[in-house]
Amino acid sequence: LSAKYESLDYDTCENYLLLDEERKKGYRFIVKKSLARWFIFLLIGVVTALIACAIDISIEELSQLKYASLSKYVDEYVTQGKLHIPYFFWVLYNIIPVLIGSTLVAYVEPIAAGSGIPQVKCYLNGVKIPRVVRIKTLFVKSVGVVCSVVGGLAGGKEGPMIHSGAVVAAGLSQGKSTTFRRDFKIFKFFREDHEKRDFVSGGAAAGVSAAFGAPVGGVLFSLEEGTSFWNQSLTWRTFFASVISTFTLNVVLSTYHGVPGDLSYPGLLNLGKFENFSYKVYELPIFLVMGALGGLSGALWNHINYKLSVFRMRYIRKRWLKVIEACIVAAVSATLGFLMMFLLNDCKPLGQDPTKYPTQLYCQDGQYNVLASIWFQTPEASVRSLFHDPPSTHNATSLAFFVLVYFFLSSWTFGLASSNGLFIPTLLTGAAWGRLISVGLFRVIPDAVLIHPGKYALIGAAAQLGGVVRMTISLTVIIMETTGNISFALPLILTLIAAKWTGDFFNEGIYDTLIQLSGVPLLPWEPPPLVHNIYASEVMSHPVVTLKCVENVGHIVELLKLTTYNGFPVVDPPLTDQSEVTTYGRIRGLVLRSQLIVILKKKIFNENSDFWEDINAGIFRDEYPRYPTIEQVSVSEVEKTYSIDLRPFMNPSPYTVLHSASLPRMFRLFRALGLRHLPIVNDTNEVIGMVTRKDLARYR
Amino acid sequence: LSAKYESLDYDTCENYLLLDEERKKGYRFIVKKSLARWFIFLLIGVVTALIACAIDISIEELSQLKYASLSKYVDEYVTQGKLHIPYFFWVLYNIIPVLIGSTLVAYVEPIAAGSGIPQVKCYLNGVKIPRVVRIKTLFVKSVGVVCSVVGGLAGGKEGPMIHSGAVVAAGLSQGKSTTFRRDFKIFKFFREDHEKRDFVSGGAAAGVSAAFGAPVGGVLFSLEEGTSFWNQSLTWRTFFASVISTFTLNVVLSTYHGVPGDLSYPGLLNLGKFENFSYKVYELPIFLVMGALGGLSGALWNHINYKLSVFRMRYIRKRWLKVIEACIVAAVSATLGFLMMFLLNDCKPLGQDPTKYPTQLYCQDGQYNVLASIWFQTPEASVRSLFHDPPSTHNATSLAFFVLVYFFLSSWTFGLASSNGLFIPTLLTGAAWGRLISVGLFRVIPDAVLIHPGKYALIGAAAQLGGVVRMTISLTVIIMETTGNISFALPLILTLIAAKWTGDFFNEGIYDTLIQLSGVPLLPWEPPPLVHNIYASEVMSHPVVTLKCVENVGHIVELLKLTTYNGFPVVDPPLTDQSEVTTYGRIRGLVLRSQLIVILKKKIFNENSDFWEDINAGIFRDEYPRYPTIEQVSVSEVEKTYSIDLRPFMNPSPYTVLHSASLPRMFRLFRALGLRHLPIVNDTNEVIGMVTRKDLARYR
Ligand SMILES: Nc1ncnc2c1ncn2[C@@H]1O[C@H](COP(=O)(O)OP(=O)(O)OP(=O)(O)O)[C@@H](O)[C@H]1O
Ligand SMILES: Nc1ncnc2c1ncn2[C@@H]1O[C@H](COP(=O)(O)OP(=O)(O)OP(=O)(O)O)[C@@H](O)[C@H]1O
Ligand SMILES: [Mg+2]
Ligand SMILES: [Mg+2]
Repeated sequence: LSAKYESLDYDTCENYLLLDEERKKGYRFIVKKSLARWFIFLLIGVVTALIACAIDISIEELSQLKYASLSKYVDEYVTQGKLHIPYFFWVLYNIIPVLIGSTLVAYVEPIAAGSGIPQVKCYLNGVKIPRVVRIKTLFVKSVGVVCSVVGGLAGGKEGPMIHSGAVVAAGLSQGKSTTFRRDFKIFKFFREDHEKRDFVSGGAAAGVSAAFGAPVGGVLFSLEEGTSFWNQSLTWRTFFASVISTFTLNVVLSTYHGVPGDLSYPGLLNLGKFENFSYKVYELPIFLVMGALGGLSGALWNHINYKLSVFRMRYIRKRWLKVIEACIVAAVSATLGFLMMFLLNDCKPLGQDPTKYPTQLYCQDGQYNVLASIWFQTPEASVRSLFHDPPSTHNATSLAFFVLVYFFLSSWTFGLASSNGLFIPTLLTGAAWGRLISVGLFRVIPDAVLIHPGKYALIGAAAQLGGVVRMTISLTVIIMETTGNISFALPLILTLIAAKWTGDFFNEGIYDTLIQLSGVPLLPWEPPPLVHNIYASEVMSHPVVTLKCVENVGHIVELLKLTTYNGFPVVDPPLTDQSEVTTYGRIRGLVLRSQLIVILKKKIFNENSDFWEDINAGIFRDEYPRYPTIEQVSVSEVEKTYSIDLRPFMNPSPYTVLHSASLPRMFRLFRALGLRHLPIVNDTNEVIGMVTRKDLARYR
Repeated sequence: LSAKYESLDYDTCENYLLLDEERKKGYRFIVKKSLARWFIFLLIGVVTALIACAIDISIEELSQLKYASLSKYVDEYVTQGKLHIPYFFWVLYNIIPVLIGSTLVAYVEPIAAGSGIPQVKCYLNGVKIPRVVRIKTLFVKSVGVVCSVVGGLAGGKEGPMIHSGAVVAAGLSQGKSTTFRRDFKIFKFFREDHEKRDFVSGGAAAGVSAAFGAPVGGVLFSLEEGTSFWNQSLTWRTFFASVISTFTLNVVLSTYHGVPGDLSYPGLLNLGKFENFSYKVYELPIFLVMGALGGLSGALWNHINYKLSVFRMRYIRKRWLKVIEACIVAAVSATLGFLMMFLLNDCKPLGQDPTKYPTQLYCQDGQYNVLASIWFQTPEASVRSLFHDPPSTHNATSLAFFVLVYFFLSSWTFGLASSNGLFIPTLLTGAAWGRLISVGLFRVIPDAVLIHPGKYALIGAAAQLGGVVRMTISLTVIIMETTGNISFALPLILTLIAAKWTGDFFNEGIYDTLIQLSGVPLLPWEPPPLVHNIYASEVMSHPVVTLKCVENVGHIVELLKLTTYNGFPVVDPPLTDQSEVTTYGRIRGLVLRSQLIVILKKKIFNENSDFWEDINAGIFRDEYPRYPTIEQVSVSEVEKTYSIDLRPFMNPSPYTVLHSASLPRMFRLFRALGLRHLPIVNDTNEVIGMVTRKDLARYR
């Protein structure tokens, strides 16, 4: 577990200042706060959707330019036998955007690499990943995802959308931007971890909703990753943000596509309209087998990706190396695509082709190259083709090669220093092998009416996705909402369950693997089995660094400089006057490092109480979220002899447990209440130990 | 708050016996238990679906008989001018089944009245409603719901299905039936509140899934009502049970309807196939207004029903009175229906009629009476008609009258001594006024292509339902899954949100109203606002009845007889030997009444430790769930001088809080961890008070 991750303070500090505020402001303040919350969620929905639209439209326009000209070049030069020229252009068109994107990521904001879903997951779970919800990250992410998709990498724009939603939420809700050094003096009351996390969960949901047109799926996603316990009003607001987000996106994209008011673009991921698939009972075993296959291939994908990540962490550490790797992948993508359409000269008559720029290549007149049409479009459009192309569009050999190539390509791509997600490439791989299976089934089973290749492509896509990410209900609902196909719920669910079980047999989902790899102290859903006999006294750290109720300033400064802990129990001094080593203090409360720093900075010392300005809960919010370090706070030598009364500031009734409490008991307390510090007490309520998230996350 | 409700023990008692068991049985036991759990969830899904099928098929067959003959009678006697004869038969056909059903409910098992959803909600929230998950209840409920639907009451079979699912789960998971005095000696390890509640939440989900064909909605329902915190493996199992349930139902019902393998009957509630509605942006405000209307009318409905319930609680207390009231409602239903079809002679040409038995009545040849066709079928079929009948089937006057009549009739019906739910009648009312609105819009707006009456019927139905029950995401998803219409999610969601907000302005949802009325200490989702300044010391009960670690048997017996408390803190005796009144004991653990009773019954006294048989955690499970009362346990005078060592049995590390903890803090602890007893301690860990669910539920 890495020490660079700190936890969120989800537990409200009910100190004297808060009570005071509550008493003074009363019920009207609560109503005002609640209205402000709804308003912010509305904003989150709208802004997230607008960003999604911007990304989508940029990708669409740029890709169109790119593939139109490539397709033209190919057909122009093929007659002259100079195919190396379009190939060269392809590589160039791939490398340039990828170079821009990966330079941004590698040099400006490395946290913007990848899909961002693992980071959002950690945040919702209660771990602060540094810089994950900053404006700069959002900027790099947005530009980066456009670059990498236009650059033809095997990646999608959906994961980044979820991350963008989270950043938007964190930004809007605070009413200030530290990056731009601007404080709009609004929404001040939401400047604390608890509120911010709630907004971020709404933002993530809005992101899912915009990415997939799946409002319910979005809510489920953020519940699944972040719930401590079901908070109804938060759920409602999250739902609201999701609905607003998909609606805004729908309006804007419909207008862009020239059908204003038609509302047929609920999400970025547009898989086209499905006819109502029907299925027979005897097809269910086939779906189950496909699910298991997806689980297997997903597990393999994860394994490869895991090995690659380890390799990268060890050898590709320099920034320029990362950029070069991304460019190599971009070039390889172009090369493989080129080889495939060149070598497998898979021709089909024109007319029923689904792409805008049919490429003839070596085909006869009136025919087009099927593989060129798959490669000469965004991966998303390719998924659409595989779902909706009429039967017998694709032949088995091309599909098989395509699966193989795309499987490894996407596994290599995910984890590069570029912002892209894995949904689309995974769906594409799955759709391709699903379609391949339907081709096989066609040969075996004579009654071929039922075996609609689009249906099998969908099941294959779901299986592959389930095998890679292993999400549960939220994933099911997302797929259901994206495909708009409820009658097909049962097959999808069975497939996903089979994929999850098979995959779990081998390894964990890709997000969890990555999270573990980076040493984030994520708390899983449940305590590990058979640990009822591990007690708090074994888990806790001791001796504990504690403070007295009225404490010497010099001592506090010393302590903060010496230790890195973020929370300190406040105790009564031991009763016995002899300074034995083993006497503990009785617990009175818990104070955070950030609070101590603010107190020191504001110089709220007992000795100069005459000069105190108005002290209210606001002084802590003003500094949130980036408190100065102890080195940045200047305390004079005289002041070091002063003292601070911690009682008005500390949390006077932190949750504590006895040293005889078992590990699952502490675990449940942490997980359910989002704790950060849990003091362990002995029979007489004296603090003898300290447990944090990191101590618990160690047991798996 | 009524004292007759006890809480569930959701918190595991991690005593010495449990640790012992864990150590002895090891990892294999955990795997075995986990497999058994999956198996039980499978069974729950299958059995729930089978019961649903049985209910559905009985209702269908009996209703068919009834309405076919009624329709025949009407057309036979109308020519002779003797319409009182079919009227008489109608009343008779209504009263007989209702008489049977309500007699069963009133005399055999009163808890089976109504939909059962409030009771299941309470159970999932952590409150044991007596007899709610017994086999007898299931029996009365199933027969009762068939009777009341066949009897033509304005009620549905969906709510009872959810209750049935819960009973099935509670029954199957225990591997024994107290009613039949049979112990199958299986699933012994699930005989405790925690496991049982988990199964019940799966059963409720399976019930929803069978009722509406909504597996995802089912899972959400039980999460929404019951989650402490998101438990992933439980969610998966719940999901599994739901899927199995809708699948089994689908297979059986498809076979029954003569299309085996076709799988077009995913749920009991069959609203028919919807074409893909499209909508324009300018229709959204209309939907919002309709939502608000639904909220208003729902609030009115709730108010009427609330007043009626209060009236019933006061005046209709005798059983025979209840039966008579039910019969009167049955007769009134028939009368109103008869009057309507008689007075509003609304005729339409035959051919496009949706009912099986078109009744001519006073219409010309080649025409049929529209109102007769609505009344001469189950309410469910009527909803289907309103959704799918071609435009201009229903005229405005008939619809208006129908809405009025059905609104009051359904409000009168819900709460009778008969088992039926309110989904269908509420949907029916809403669908009728939704269609009415579409008729109105037709007149106002010339561009009438968009105003498909079925679409407006659906929105109206959702609005009315949202206004009455105010469920949230689960309801949205249920409606989406039932109608199979995902593209229509946004309008539905907007409508439901508007309905909820408008309704909440006036009163609470009907289920919550009923729960409050019966004084169940349900813990809401969140603590009330502005209560940070209420401390544990104000909430708690004191003095606390405590026990010593080694306690005299006579004293325990005495205590159990004198008090009704279910939990007793175990304490060290106060240090001072003087028996001051105000000294408290230091907490060592918590022991439950049920544990004490089992110990007494098994005579596990220190003095006869030589005769102890094998003592393991199983002895407590054997007595679960109906422990003897203290009066049923015989303790001789000699034994009263013996002593019991409570330490191996008690929960050695109960959650406790300081007396200075605030109300929201305790509330969150209770809600998140499903606590039953929370000892309050002072600075030195001495028990000074006790807080239970009832103490907290008082603050609203
Ligand atoms: N006040 C303290 N006294 C002694 N040990 C502590 C104290 N606070 C934390 N620890 C221990 O230090 C180790 C690492 O601390 P950790 O970084 O988890 O704490 P933190 O920084 O206070 O919390 P977080 O990182 O979750 O914000 C843990 O094992 C924890 O138990
Ligand atoms: N051991 C106890 N000593 C003193 N008061 C108690 C004790 N247990 C419960 N009480 C108080 O008695 C009142 C009613 O008790 P209640 O019925 O809620 O407790 P219970 O029966 O132990 O728990 P439950 O009914 O939730 O199963 C509450 O106000 C509670 O605080
Ligand atoms: Mg730390
Ligand atoms: Mg009680």
